[in-house]
Amino acid sequence: MAGTVEKKLTDLGIALPAPAAPVANYVPFVRTGKLLIISGQLCFDPEGKLVAKGRLGDGVTIEDGAKAAQACAVNLLAQLKAALGDLDKIARVVRLGGFINSAPGFVDGPKVMNGASDLMVTAFGDKGRHARTTVGVAALPLDAAVEVEGMFEVV
Amino acid sequence: MAGTVEKKLTDLGIALPAPAAPVANYVPFVRTGKLLIISGQLCFDPEGKLVAKGRLGDGVTIEDGAKAAQACAVNLLAQLKAALGDLDKIARVVRLGGFINSAPGFVDGPKVMNGASDLMVTAFGDKGRHARTTVGVAALPLDAAVEVEGMFEVV
Amino acid sequence: MAGTVEKKLTDLGIALPAPAAPVANYVPFVRTGKLLIISGQLCFDPEGKLVAKGRLGDGVTIEDGAKAAQACAVNLLAQLKAALGDLDKIARVVRLGGFINSAPGFVDGPKVMNGASDLMVTAFGDKGRHARTTVGVAALPLDAAVEVEGMFEVV
Repeated sequence: MAGTVEKKLTDLGIALPAPAAPVANYVPFVRTGKLLIISGQLCFDPEGKLVAKGRLGDGVTIEDGAKAAQACAVNLLAQLKAALGDLDKIARVVRLGGFINSAPGFVDGPKVMNGASDLMVTAFGDKGRHARTTVGVAALPLDAAVEVEGMFEVV
Repeated sequence: MAGTVEKKLTDLGIALPAPAAPVANYVPFVRTGKLLIISGQLCFDPEGKLVAKGRLGDGVTIEDGAKAAQACAVNLLAQLKAALGDLDKIARVVRLGGFINSAPGFVDGPKVMNGASDLMVTAFGDKGRHARTTVGVAALPLDAAVEVEGMFEVV
Repeated sequence: MAGTVEKKLTDLGIALPAPAAPVANYVPFVRTGKLLIISGQLCFDPEGKLVAKGRLGDGVTIEDGAKAAQACAVNLLAQLKAALGDLDKIARVVRLGGFINSAPGFVDGPKVMNGASDLMVTAFGDKGRHARTTVGVAALPLDAAVEVEGMFEVV
């Protein structure tokens, strides 16, 4: 059953995809105490295709990067749903770590990462406001443009 | 009112700046249980100017990088003060994550990051000794030379 | 005395090295509540030599990178043993953060990082399955090919 948060997303046309399954000896999420740690999520769309591929500042636009960051956030939500069954069980988005595939000198990582941050606030309201670190990295798995990891507090 | 830790910093000539306000849907800090998670801080000086801009190993010296890392640490303290009102409420600096804007092949990230680590021990003594991860990244917001994030335990 | 986990490693021919001592104002691990945070570990072998140096996608092979990641994981275990005295006190490997020294366009970070993930599952079984974030960075301390940090839950 979908809770309040998921219904809000559905009303906005945002469907939660089937969460990506890791292909190795790790898992998508681990709970420790009230913390839920989610593995870095790539910018897959619901069909499993990367929303943006390559580097910001070298072909990928800020707008496409922000869409990619939003896709990462949607995938974080999909993992949360898989972990908890209901997104309403999230007490707080604690932290997002944003890794932007960047050409040297690309300075607009935060504008890209806003795609992820905005989605969290859309989904959770004030509980969605999080601490955040955004950095530009040299390379990402599958040449994804963006990867986002998350730490959440469970009610 | 300034506590013991802040007085020590003042005696050393280190004033806490007004903490930087995020310009998007995230916040400078989130508390969960006894943990306080602080967003990545750039190397702004108290006037809001970057202490060092560009890449280590490509124009920015190790000495200037260390000053930049210290500025990031001062900004972490400013956020702690905003979060808790008094730095004496910190029980332990748990972890610092240091991101050094680096040209490929720059191997001295730890020397740069010491600027941040040393300030934590100056401020908090043994409680300031932390776990640390230092990596060289391809790009940082605003072309800052250094970004540092932190995890703290509150008394 | 070696516990069950360490005996298993010994049977596999994996000896825990003397843990690396930080050379600055930070420490290899900090415990907060039930969490144990371990500083980023470089890919030193038991003799203190880097298992692989330089960049993936530019000289270092995926196979050598995976060996380097495994060495980082062994060094994490050595720090856990130093912190707790007995690896059997680990309730769960919560999270690994993998930083792969990467040439732009290197897309196989996860294959490299599997060297670390596999070792955790070898050592701890299902308790070794962790959340994970893998990114390609521009530079690492001492030009190490891989650095891995960890978060663990203590029983």
